[in-house]
Amino acid sequence: MQEIRLASRPSGWPTADNFELVELPTPELGPGQVLVRNQFMSVDPYMRGRMNDVESYVAPFEVGKALDGAAIGEVVASNAESVPVGATVVHGLGWRDYAVLDAKRVRVVDPSAAPTPSAYLGLLGMTGLTAYVGLLDIAQFREGDVVFVSGAAGAVGSVVGQIAKLRGAKRVIGSAGSAEKVRHLIDDLGFDAAFNYKDSSVRDQLRAAAPDGIDVYFDNVGGDHLEAAIKFLNKYGRVALCGAISQYNETSAPAAPRNLALAIGKELNLRGFIVGNHNDRMPDFVAEVGGWLREGKISAQETIVEGLANAPEAFLGLMRGENTGKMVIKLGE
Amino acid sequence: MQEIRLASRPSGWPTADNFELVELPTPELGPGQVLVRNQFMSVDPYMRGRMNDVESYVAPFEVGKALDGAAIGEVVASNAESVPVGATVVHGLGWRDYAVLDAKRVRVVDPSAAPTPSAYLGLLGMTGLTAYVGLLDIAQFREGDVVFVSGAAGAVGSVVGQIAKLRGAKRVIGSAGSAEKVRHLIDDLGFDAAFNYKDSSVRDQLRAAAPDGIDVYFDNVGGDHLEAAIKFLNKYGRVALCGAISQYNETSAPAAPRNLALAIGKELNLRGFIVGNHNDRMPDFVAEVGGWLREGKISAQETIVEGLANAPEAFLGLMRGENTGKMVIKLGE
Repeated sequence: MQEIRLASRPSGWPTADNFELVELPTPELGPGQVLVRNQFMSVDPYMRGRMNDVESYVAPFEVGKALDGAAIGEVVASNAESVPVGATVVHGLGWRDYAVLDAKRVRVVDPSAAPTPSAYLGLLGMTGLTAYVGLLDIAQFREGDVVFVSGAAGAVGSVVGQIAKLRGAKRVIGSAGSAEKVRHLIDDLGFDAAFNYKDSSVRDQLRAAAPDGIDVYFDNVGGDHLEAAIKFLNKYGRVALCGAISQYNETSAPAAPRNLALAIGKELNLRGFIVGNHNDRMPDFVAEVGGWLREGKISAQETIVEGLANAPEAFLGLMRGENTGKMVIKLGE
Repeated sequence: MQEIRLASRPSGWPTADNFELVELPTPELGPGQVLVRNQFMSVDPYMRGRMNDVESYVAPFEVGKALDGAAIGEVVASNAESVPVGATVVHGLGWRDYAVLDAKRVRVVDPSAAPTPSAYLGLLGMTGLTAYVGLLDIAQFREGDVVFVSGAAGAVGSVVGQIAKLRGAKRVIGSAGSAEKVRHLIDDLGFDAAFNYKDSSVRDQLRAAAPDGIDVYFDNVGGDHLEAAIKFLNKYGRVALCGAISQYNETSAPAAPRNLALAIGKELNLRGFIVGNHNDRMPDFVAEVGGWLREGKISAQETIVEGLANAPEAFLGLMRGENTGKMVIKLGE
């Protein structure tokens, strides 16, 4: 089996040298354990924070040890009755082609309920739940709201925008980093307006896209996106602080937002969240989003990279915004 | 009668030239109106924002017209049965010695229920309600919380700290701008810790004062205070964004806070508010804080300046932090 380890900690932008692919013998299974052949693994922006030696909501990766993250695969050996050989399971040991886990650390899923197993890492997984919880619970979305989402062509943002439309948003606006992504948002995902943040200032483009202001901002980016959103948020506006990808690889503190004091008079509510504490919403999420998926009302593009050895480069591409929708690595044959 | 008008709009720090004292004949009372001889008027930091020509939650003051704000006085003539001569009333036409108002625009209060009528502008007025609503509703204070309040010797901050103690805070920490204010917080108001933000960085002093972090931050100041609070807020910390006096007179955008992205992993909740939308809490507030006042459990220092002509200078002093507790102007004989 093979795994990818953290070879060294990056300062600023990571490089291929920070990762190391290692060959290992297949381990023995202990009692109650299963051997999973991973089919897909996820790369996510939050992993960048775990490459730093900083205490956060998840422990940092350790130098010289394998990285981890969401993965889905097939059980090929089992010492646990509850999880038989042949089961498809979601678990937390990505960044390797085979994983050994206690049976209670895997979740059995029905591969026939999804268009592809990788959907359990994206639209039907933590990514989709992040969008669902962030929009509905954290930002307290209400029918008739004008919603702005940054990183809108990304794994989370693309789901946020679609849920907002399906739940009755008055207008959904997205920002992304290329003309093709902007086209995708409007033509494929049904956004009402979208812009390429590289074309000119976020502030000017958001002003043009939101003539009546915005009620909800779902932030995946931070920095000048957040500052522009604060400027154009309406009274009682709500912000879900989900990510800040604009600053994960910066070594100096961001200059923006500089206008947080506007939150006083506008009575804004800004809430940070991480999805791990909202698993109680999984049943509602699966029922509602799974239903839309079956009815063909929601879709999720994926950017698929093949082979474990290419996972580090895929992760770096994710940080550069090279994905549309969920970035996943296809493993094995 | 006399009133103070906005002579010109300031850029940066206001000066005496921005104000003009004008003599007027006493106006005729219309039907349903009352004439109030003002005894005390309030100067408040939020008035600085109204001196700018910027749409906000309250309309800007108009150049060439009288300023306004909270005041308390005695009805000396009345065309309204509901508000007889001799009644003590709170209303919104400060910055003048006599005010003419429709009777429905005044609130009759019991002067014997307060140590001084000016308490209705401070501890028992909008100032106290601001502290109450901000701490309990906006920051969702819970017994056992560690609370940090900036501008802690000011009108709102001093009440926040005392309510937190009375409601069972584990520890209450305040910042202020002089050694005497720091002494006042600890010796007179029962704060557990306090520091002078001019002594060294807020970050270092807050770290020392809050070895276990903070759960609630009540922000009257913004800028580096807010940045330090975000740094030391514990998981699920809550911030009431009430004021940003550090930047009201600045002509460039503040550099801080630069660490708002920490709100994601810590799942912080930052909420701006203005008290005007929370009048529904007035009965609870009067019952609880009025009770503490009668029992001698809460106190409110005042900084009293005499004479309408001195109101502009008092307001400027307020912006420089020259007050301890509520700054009020005593009017009339």
